[in-house]
Order: sequence, then C-alpha cells, then structure tokens
Amino acid sequence: MQQVSIYQEAFVSYLNNFIKPREPESLYNPINYILKLGGKRLRPVLTLMTAEIFNCDYKKALDAALSIEVFHNFSLVHDDIMDDAPLRRGEETVHEKWDLNTGILSGDAMLIMAYQLFENYSPDVFQALARLFSKTALEVCEGQQFDVDFETRDNVTIPEYLKMIEYKTAVLVGAAMKMGAIVAQATKEDQDIIYEFGKNLGIAFQLQDDYLDVFGDPKTFGKQVGGDIIENKKTYLYLKAVEFSEADKKTELQHLYSLNTTDHSEKIKTAKQIFVSSGSAEATKKAIEAYTNKAFTVLDHLNVCEKNKLGLIAFGKQLMGRNV
Amino acid sequence: MQQVSIYQEAFVSYLNNFIKPREPESLYNPINYILKLGGKRLRPVLTLMTAEIFNCDYKKALDAALSIEVFHNFSLVHDDIMDDAPLRRGEETVHEKWDLNTGILSGDAMLIMAYQLFENYSPDVFQALARLFSKTALEVCEGQQFDVDFETRDNVTIPEYLKMIEYKTAVLVGAAMKMGAIVAQATKEDQDIIYEFGKNLGIAFQLQDDYLDVFGDPKTFGKQVGGDIIENKKTYLYLKAVEFSEADKKTELQHLYSLNTTDHSEKIKTAKQIFVSSGSAEATKKAIEAYTNKAFTVLDHLNVCEKNKLGLIAFGKQLMGRNV
Repeated sequence: MQQVSIYQEAFVSYLNNFIKPREPESLYNPINYILKLGGKRLRPVLTLMTAEIFNCDYKKALDAALSIEVFHNFSLVHDDIMDDAPLRRGEETVHEKWDLNTGILSGDAMLIMAYQLFENYSPDVFQALARLFSKTALEVCEGQQFDVDFETRDNVTIPEYLKMIEYKTAVLVGAAMKMGAIVAQATKEDQDIIYEFGKNLGIAFQLQDDYLDVFGDPKTFGKQVGGDIIENKKTYLYLKAVEFSEADKKTELQHLYSLNTTDHSEKIKTAKQIFVSSGSAEATKKAIEAYTNKAFTVLDHLNVCEKNKLGLIAFGKQLMGRNV
Repeated sequence: MQQVSIYQEAFVSYLNNFIKPREPESLYNPINYILKLGGKRLRPVLTLMTAEIFNCDYKKALDAALSIEVFHNFSLVHDDIMDDAPLRRGEETVHEKWDLNTGILSGDAMLIMAYQLFENYSPDVFQALARLFSKTALEVCEGQQFDVDFETRDNVTIPEYLKMIEYKTAVLVGAAMKMGAIVAQATKEDQDIIYEFGKNLGIAFQLQDDYLDVFGDPKTFGKQVGGDIIENKKTYLYLKAVEFSEADKKTELQHLYSLNTTDHSEKIKTAKQIFVSSGSAEATKKAIEAYTNKAFTVLDHLNVCEKNKLGLIAFGKQLMGRNV
C-alpha cells in the first residue's frame, strides 16, 4: 500500500487518457466535461489501494477504478437533473450547460461505458465485477428513490434513513473496495470483509457529513454550513432529535422544518439548539463512532499482513479525522 | 424453428413471471407498468427463434430475450421524455403518469436490470452477451443523439441518415438475433452472419416505416399517416426528394418543411406529390428491396440446415410483407 497521492495521480493520468473527442460530440463532450470537473477521486483510489492490499499491482485495477468513477459521475449527472441543481463543483451542471435531453442521454451512455470498462478482464473476473456493479448500481437507484420519497413523508424511521444512506452512498464505497479485491483474486471471504469495511466506513462518513453540515467549521467544510436545515432535510440529526424530544419540542422542530423562511441564521440557530439539548448531536457522534469502529472490527478476520491492515485503519482514521 | 406465436406466448409468460411488486414501489411500479403495456415483442421473439435456428432449446435464451425487451423499454421511457411524448401504445407515458424524475430513475434501473438478466449464463457466454449488449446500447444512444442533432440541421446526407437509423433501430434487431446465436454457442462466423441479417432487415424495416408513414393504408398502418410530414421529419423520402429535385421544387419542399401549418391535409398532399414526381418514392421502395435482399443474401454462408434458412427467409418476407 502506497501514499494516497500516488494512487490519485496514477488514476487522474489514466482518466485523462480515457477522455478523448468522440462522435457524436453532442453526446460525448458533456461526458468528458463532467469527468474533467475534478473531485477527490476517493472511490477509484479505494479500488487501487485495495488491489495492493491483496498484493496485486494497482495498475491491473485501473479499469475497474475508472468504471466506478464513470458510474459515480453518471449518478451525479442524473441526480443533478432530479435535484434541479445549477452547480456541481462550482461549475455549471450538464443539464444547465447543455439541456435536459443531453443530461439524460449522456448519463445513459456513461452507465453503459462503465460496464464496458470491465471488458479487458478475463470472463470470470468480468462476470464477478459486472455482477457486483449491477447489484450496487441498482441499490444506488433505490437509495436515490428512497431519498426522493422521504421528502414528502413525515414518518421516516431511523432504520429507514440508515438504509437510504447505505444504498445511496455507502454500498458504492464497499463495492469500490471489493472490486479491487476481485481484480486481485482475493478469497470470497476477504472480498466480503473488505466490502463490509468500506460500507460501514461509508455510512460513518455520510453520518459525519450530516453532522458537519450543522456543526462543521465554515472555513474547512466544503459546503454551506446549515444547508440541510435550510432545505428541511430530515437527516439523522433531525430524526434523532424528533425521537428524543418531548411533545412540545418535537412540535417546534417539526414546525420549523415545515417553513421556508428567509431568515436562515435564526432557523439554523434554533435547530442547532434543539439538536444539542435533545441529545441528538451527541447520539449522532456516537453513531459515527460506532460505524467507524464496526468498520475497523470487521478487519480482524481479514487475511492480509498486519502492515496492510494497519494501513487500512490509518486511511479510515484519516478519512474520518475531519473536525467532528 | 417453430411458429412465431409459440415464441411470443412463451416470452410473454416468462415476462409476466418477471414482473413482480418490489420495493421501493415508486421505482419499480413504473417499470412493471411499461413492461406490461404490450407491443409485438418482436425483438425477444427473434432471440428465441435464432437460438432454435442453431439447434438450441429456445428456453435457454429466455433471459437474453428478456434483457433485450427490458433494454428496449428503457429506451422508450427515456426517448418519450426527450420527445415530450404524452402517449405510448395508447396509454400515458411513464413521465406523464408519474413525473420526470420517475421516468429518469426507473429508466436507469431498467438499463441495469437488463445486464443482470445475463447473470445466469456461464462466464464466457455472460461476457459475450454483455459485450454485445454494451456496444449495441451505446450505438442506440448515439443513434438517438444523431436523430436529435438532425432536427436542427438542414444538410443531413443520405449516408448520415442511414447510419442514424442503423444505430437507433437496426443494430438492436441484429443484436437480438446474435444473442440467440451466442446462447446457442454458434460459431463466431455464424454469429456475425445472423447479426448482419438482422441489421439489414432492421434497416429495411425502418425505411419501410418511413414509406408507410406517407403511403400506407390508414386502416392497417398503426400510426397517423402523414405524421412525419406534419412534424417536418427529414426521412429517407424527404432527403431523396431534395436530392432528386430541380432547384425550384427543392426550394418548395424545403419551404414546406419549415412550416408548422394547421392545414395538414394540404401539406401532406403537396409533399406526397413531390415524393412521387421526384422519383423519391420509387427510390425508397428500391432501397427497401435492396436492404431486404442484402439480408437474405448474407444467409447464403450461414452454416445451418436448408429448412432453417428457409424459415428465416419466410419470417423476413412476412415481416416485410406489409402493404408497401
């Protein structure tokens, strides 16, 4: 296992080589545009890193890593349409820069291209990768649908919310790592362990995102602090606060989350107070810790050398070491 | 090779077994709705028939046939959004009955499900099917994009138009048949021949659709006769008429196709006259015949018994035996 920056650079160089002009330009230019927008490339790096954890040259996993990144960007293009989002990473979204039809069709093409990236692997590896990919991609669609459904429901339970973030976000992290393990021809048992590691870390990461959205440092948190409160998003923090609150506080919170006020700072302040006083903030921190520890615990049974195991734990700690 | 109706019934029964309630309902109900809307099920029937041509029990090809049908319906759902179509087979389109986001996300899920339907095949067959599927699906996207691009171009050439209908329509017919051959483990050579047969028959069929849209019998042709003229669609008939006409007739036709008149019958009548007088109608009939014959000719080298070959020709003749 090497420095994360080594994987990042190797991946970006491989990606840049993949991005080529192609006909019809009206279909492929938007694809090249979104792929070049940047981002941390976290998922593909995980694929490369996992291949090496299982003693396989990371270069063999570059196609699988690229597939994961192309799929991730497909989901961004279609999600941005569904969320009517004007910006992505500070730049215009595909459907804004071009139009709705381009967003739909270019997204479709990316989903297909993600499968094509498995074609250079042997039939056995190909089938294992494609099977995992399909299962994961369908779960991501289901997670997105749950998220959409939850917007108009006021009885979402904590288990339902956890399932939604698991499907929408965490399974892709697990799958990114498992793909590295599949390419490295790790045992089925090790493949499953690394998947569980990635999935639980992914859930912890998403819960932490919910937490930082409210309590994060505006200077270091990438997005607008309080954004979820402004948008009335029923996150873990909100659901736990509703669960923990007495009737009057519960009504106050639910009322607050039915408003579309213009005085954001007052709304954010009130919600924050309830999250703290109800014990929801504390419970969220505990949940983040629990999922992080669960991720580390599953590694106990992983059949790799201690050094690599410690490398994974160090990576996980670094990932979760944002200011909680 | 059996009666087409045998394959049709077997396929519909298999499809009905596949259509099951599934969570989240808001994602899967629209999928089940579009799959149940009906249609001739022509593509999956071709897959089953081709498997038997190569002496393989058609039942082994049911999953591949279903994949083709699920993909076809995915493309209908997304195309209907792009075309803003309110109706499909006389019923509400998915984005009309539900909404835009449902249309996008349910379509995405169908594309993934189409790949999943290959999972029961052995790794070699799986890879061959998925590889053909990806290539074809990407071509269908490219064909759809060419079609969109052509709407705003007035210099589309005949070869460009032929490539568009080949990609948008014909390659899926070729692929449906080739999948039957792959499942039957036919030789690579036979797989390629049957693909060429299907593709050329698909082009002939689409050109015939263009022709019947203008000259078809309103009683037997499924759609509104003259629909392409009303919508200013630059079909083979139109492009050939422009090619064959003198300057003044050419200008008249181009002017006619820049109008959005309400007097449809007069517009249709004028266009029809130019199609006939320019020789475009005759040239289109000849092109249909040429592609049909090309399909039959490639069968010469197909390594199957004469009876099966004659069966394929009879089927092709029946398919093209609409009132040209």
